[in-house]
Amino acid sequence: MALIVQKFGGTSVGDADRIRAVADHIARTRRQGNDVVAVVSAMGKSTDDLLRLAGAVCSTTPPPREMDMLLTSGERISMSLLCMALADLGVPAASFTGSQAGIITDNEHTRAKILEIRPDRLSAAIAEGMVPVVAGFQGMSTDRDITTLGRGGSDVTAVALGAALGADVCEIYTDVTGVFSADPRVVPTAKRLAHISFDEMNEMAATGGRVLMLRSVEFARSHHVPLHVRSSFTWEPGTWVVEEDESMEQAIVSAVTHDTSEAKVTVAGVPDRPGIAAHLFRALADRAVNVDMIVQNTSANGTTDISFTVPRVDLAAAVEVAESLRAELGFVEVTSDSSIARLSVIGAGMKSHPGVTATMFETLASLGVNIEMISTSSIRISCVVDEAVVEDAMRAVHAAYGLG
Amino acid sequence: MALIVQKFGGTSVGDADRIRAVADHIARTRRQGNDVVAVVSAMGKSTDDLLRLAGAVCSTTPPPREMDMLLTSGERISMSLLCMALADLGVPAASFTGSQAGIITDNEHTRAKILEIRPDRLSAAIAEGMVPVVAGFQGMSTDRDITTLGRGGSDVTAVALGAALGADVCEIYTDVTGVFSADPRVVPTAKRLAHISFDEMNEMAATGGRVLMLRSVEFARSHHVPLHVRSSFTWEPGTWVVEEDESMEQAIVSAVTHDTSEAKVTVAGVPDRPGIAAHLFRALADRAVNVDMIVQNTSANGTTDISFTVPRVDLAAAVEVAESLRAELGFVEVTSDSSIARLSVIGAGMKSHPGVTATMFETLASLGVNIEMISTSSIRISCVVDEAVVEDAMRAVHAAYGLG
Repeated sequence: MALIVQKFGGTSVGDADRIRAVADHIARTRRQGNDVVAVVSAMGKSTDDLLRLAGAVCSTTPPPREMDMLLTSGERISMSLLCMALADLGVPAASFTGSQAGIITDNEHTRAKILEIRPDRLSAAIAEGMVPVVAGFQGMSTDRDITTLGRGGSDVTAVALGAALGADVCEIYTDVTGVFSADPRVVPTAKRLAHISFDEMNEMAATGGRVLMLRSVEFARSHHVPLHVRSSFTWEPGTWVVEEDESMEQAIVSAVTHDTSEAKVTVAGVPDRPGIAAHLFRALADRAVNVDMIVQNTSANGTTDISFTVPRVDLAAAVEVAESLRAELGFVEVTSDSSIARLSVIGAGMKSHPGVTATMFETLASLGVNIEMISTSSIRISCVVDEAVVEDAMRAVHAAYGLG
Repeated sequence: MALIVQKFGGTSVGDADRIRAVADHIARTRRQGNDVVAVVSAMGKSTDDLLRLAGAVCSTTPPPREMDMLLTSGERISMSLLCMALADLGVPAASFTGSQAGIITDNEHTRAKILEIRPDRLSAAIAEGMVPVVAGFQGMSTDRDITTLGRGGSDVTAVALGAALGADVCEIYTDVTGVFSADPRVVPTAKRLAHISFDEMNEMAATGGRVLMLRSVEFARSHHVPLHVRSSFTWEPGTWVVEEDESMEQAIVSAVTHDTSEAKVTVAGVPDRPGIAAHLFRALADRAVNVDMIVQNTSANGTTDISFTVPRVDLAAAVEVAESLRAELGFVEVTSDSSIARLSVIGAGMKSHPGVTATMFETLASLGVNIEMISTSSIRISCVVDEAVVEDAMRAVHAAYGLG
């Protein structure tokens, strides 16, 4: 008998039929002898409808506190409907808002962070043989206001409850059947991974794998909550995201990811003296520009080039900030390129296998693809290439590592 | 400078345009130097949509706790949108759920009663110059569950907050322009009343006047909260419901009401001995049949007839209960009539004016209308007549008392 947190996203509870299918699945999980805590998102497109209404009553940016109040009505609807569907199957269930579930957050409306979970009401419900159905994405601030957790917030709710309740697994139900060795829309031979380590999943989330948000993976890893990513349309086993097990044979490369949402900025001819990079990136941080990759080469002739990537929406701001520092920092010029793509290869086995990098570079070379930037971690290699060639490059690299 | 509670019903906040009109009106009320607390219902037909969803996921009666959770999402949407519309006009506002507004109820889901109001968060918001926008119809139970207050619940919320905050007036905005001397759809000459006493309003609510529910009027009277019933479409002054003022000249008759939702049951040939009526009406109460009028005549020949009215939906149950007691109580027969109407004349001035009753009976006699039951209070005369003639009778009585 296990305690399982099951999180159902917006498409999984998109209409009455889907909600009844979810109730069936929860009932089946219980018949197999498990306790279940369900976490739900708002129904399908209901959040869009609410945002449209907000736009119709308010010509400026709506107050964030009220935006949170508005959007949290969405989970209230899906969770009470799920409890009704469970009751219809004879499964005792009770819905809990973020506040009732004891999810205490900071006061940052629309992007609050969980500070603490006080799950006594949920524990009591489980002890009484009930299924607690908890609103994802929402909490109560220390000021007793309603907050939301921002993008991917429902996954964070599920993982945090899994940690607080000591769950055996947190199952994330979504509209894909698991985590794949590459995006199947780009690489038709991509395969579903049965297992992946938290480290690998983290790197995937950070480099364009869209199944899970970095934030919930990080939370699951630090609290040792095994994740199981599955489909609520097929209900078949999906991908387990687990602690790395030294005894387990690790794939050298598990997955190839790509990300076309970023742009590249190069600050060229930078005098090679201490403090220049600090000055530049502090100025970018002050403008809230989210810098991702940073590459700086050894200097030649007393100057160097610094390249970095930023979200495309931040490109104009990044260039403006850099330009404004030209006289002060004494560099030569700022150039940028918004049609780049980042291609990454991820695998926990890389740590103990030299030569993994060479395969990637050789594959790109054989396609005539120019590598614009390189960055690596112990389990990842990322290359920035021209956006136009990334999909071909991806298929070739996927094949070169034998992932198909 | 006054403190005004303004309650806006479902049609008053039915769409984005209506919500902006309500925000305008609140802003205007503030410019006139008043503090405002707004109470809102769910938007127009949104409750019907939620009920439809509940029916689609649950083939049996949904658990009442979850029904309350579901329906309370409605006010959450309307109140946050109203705050956004107010922000757009530069009026600082904050929304409060029933729980946040300190509305503590008993645990009777779907028809909870308010036990206590702890309005400290609302008082603090008012002191900061904000408009608190409170969800009507909902509260938090002593078990910390979400509850709803049943039919007319948003009016009860408004009145209860008016009492707790010591408001100068509670304005009930609706889709009619006030309280009329009769239903204008039936009596074209009906006039809007500028003032009406709580006692009269109570009798109107109890006898078919649909503007306010008995419950909120009763609450307002016992807590001395003046009510002002007005239209959110014209914004013109409506009807004040106030304490009876002995110095004010009272109309002998203020209004004529009618109610066609009831049916009549007659238990004939009842032995005239103590305890019979108690036995009958206890049995009806045990079946949750809501008995309204009861009339029993002096006995003749040692037997009497007892007639009573019940909601038409309860008629079959009432007849069944009565029949089941025939042998035990020794009466002759049970008859019933579901095509009756109750015609009432209400006026606080009746107390000091004899002869008011005669005018009504004469008017009905002149129309050839047979009176089936009569019941009176100090400020009301009700006659049960054939449903087919009630509208003609109503127009004639309205004219006879000079109300047109």
